[in-house]
Amino acid sequence: MFEKSISNAVRNRLPKYYRYVGELLDDGIEKVSSSELSVRMNISASLVRQDLCMFSGAGLQGYGYDVEDLYEKIGDAIGVNQCHNVIVIGAGNLGQALVSYMNFARNSFAVKGIFAVNSRLVGHVFKRMELRSLDNLEQFMKENPIQIAALAVPDKSAERIAGRLQKAGIKAIWNFTNTDLNLPKGIVVENVHLAESLMQLSSRMNISA
Amino acid sequence: MFEKSISNAVRNRLPKYYRYVGELLDDGIEKVSSSELSVRMNISASLVRQDLCMFSGAGLQGYGYDVEDLYEKIGDAIGVNQCHNVIVIGAGNLGQALVSYMNFARNSFAVKGIFAVNSRLVGHVFKRMELRSLDNLEQFMKENPIQIAALAVPDKSAERIAGRLQKAGIKAIWNFTNTDLNLPKGIVVENVHLAESLMQLSSRMNISA
Repeated sequence: MFEKSISNAVRNRLPKYYRYVGELLDDGIEKVSSSELSVRMNISASLVRQDLCMFSGAGLQGYGYDVEDLYEKIGDAIGVNQCHNVIVIGAGNLGQALVSYMNFARNSFAVKGIFAVNSRLVGHVFKRMELRSLDNLEQFMKENPIQIAALAVPDKSAERIAGRLQKAGIKAIWNFTNTDLNLPKGIVVENVHLAESLMQLSSRMNISA
Repeated sequence: MFEKSISNAVRNRLPKYYRYVGELLDDGIEKVSSSELSVRMNISASLVRQDLCMFSGAGLQGYGYDVEDLYEKIGDAIGVNQCHNVIVIGAGNLGQALVSYMNFARNSFAVKGIFAVNSRLVGHVFKRMELRSLDNLEQFMKENPIQIAALAVPDKSAERIAGRLQKAGIKAIWNFTNTDLNLPKGIVVENVHLAESLMQLSSRMNISA
């Protein structure tokens, strides 16, 4: 129980490490110490050492971490060094933004299809991809190995479409709707609740005003 | 100290209450009990009663909450019943998605201007608004009372533009860049780190696989 919660906590911090170490790599920095990382990430150096001890060989006492090696190893751990096939459901501004966004992501996420909820958009072309009809979702997933679906559809359609994705064998949903999806535990759901984020912001403004 | 952390915890939950109570309102439901809310939100009924006790009068023992009244009161508390003037900085797909997104938000957020970082986009029209040049940011903020800036620009420009917004008197930044902004405490920063969210997702897939 204790060990599991620790590893969850570490796991939750890994993407942040990955981002910072990636910045160092971009800046051409080759070595970094746990105390430098700790300042950058605003956590204690001992926690950094603890978090990263699983990447054995990456850090040596008094020497620091090899940035490239550490970046590679954290990338392996969080699964971004393998390519995931993605579909985006919803072809409005948000869906289009997500397609553009994932194209950036250092080849870890390949958008294989975009599905439009609004049938008038079907057949249009975005980023050299034809917007597909939702009617063909199951057929498409049968013919293409898709692991992740980004869901950017109206809230009222979210649950129904998630159910179809589940039956078609999706592994993970990046959920941008304001709906909490009820799915079996085996399916990973990562929520980005934009409306709630916006309310957090106005709420905090309201209090600090 | 203890009391402050409690109120922060409650404050963090209020947007979620607001969303659920809003759904009840949309469904035409007039009364709701703390136990019904607790089931819906997957937290204990006693916590619901505790969280909502500040909205005195909204709940009566054995009677439940008046949905409309509760929605209004939570809305007041999180500041969404007043209108905030917003500018969106960055006119790519994500910036455009955010403009569309805020137009939905029940009149709480009014997008007053969109600024393009890419100068080739300046002068184009989106949602009946001309895309403005970043050169005119300070002038625009002098002439228009703007409280919130949504920041959807390349990471490398984030810090510099945030500094300009700060000097121009911004109250809050909805930050979609992958940069942690260093700003004085008086300015509210709400982060939506899409890249990190995507990595959390792939990381959790990697573990559950």
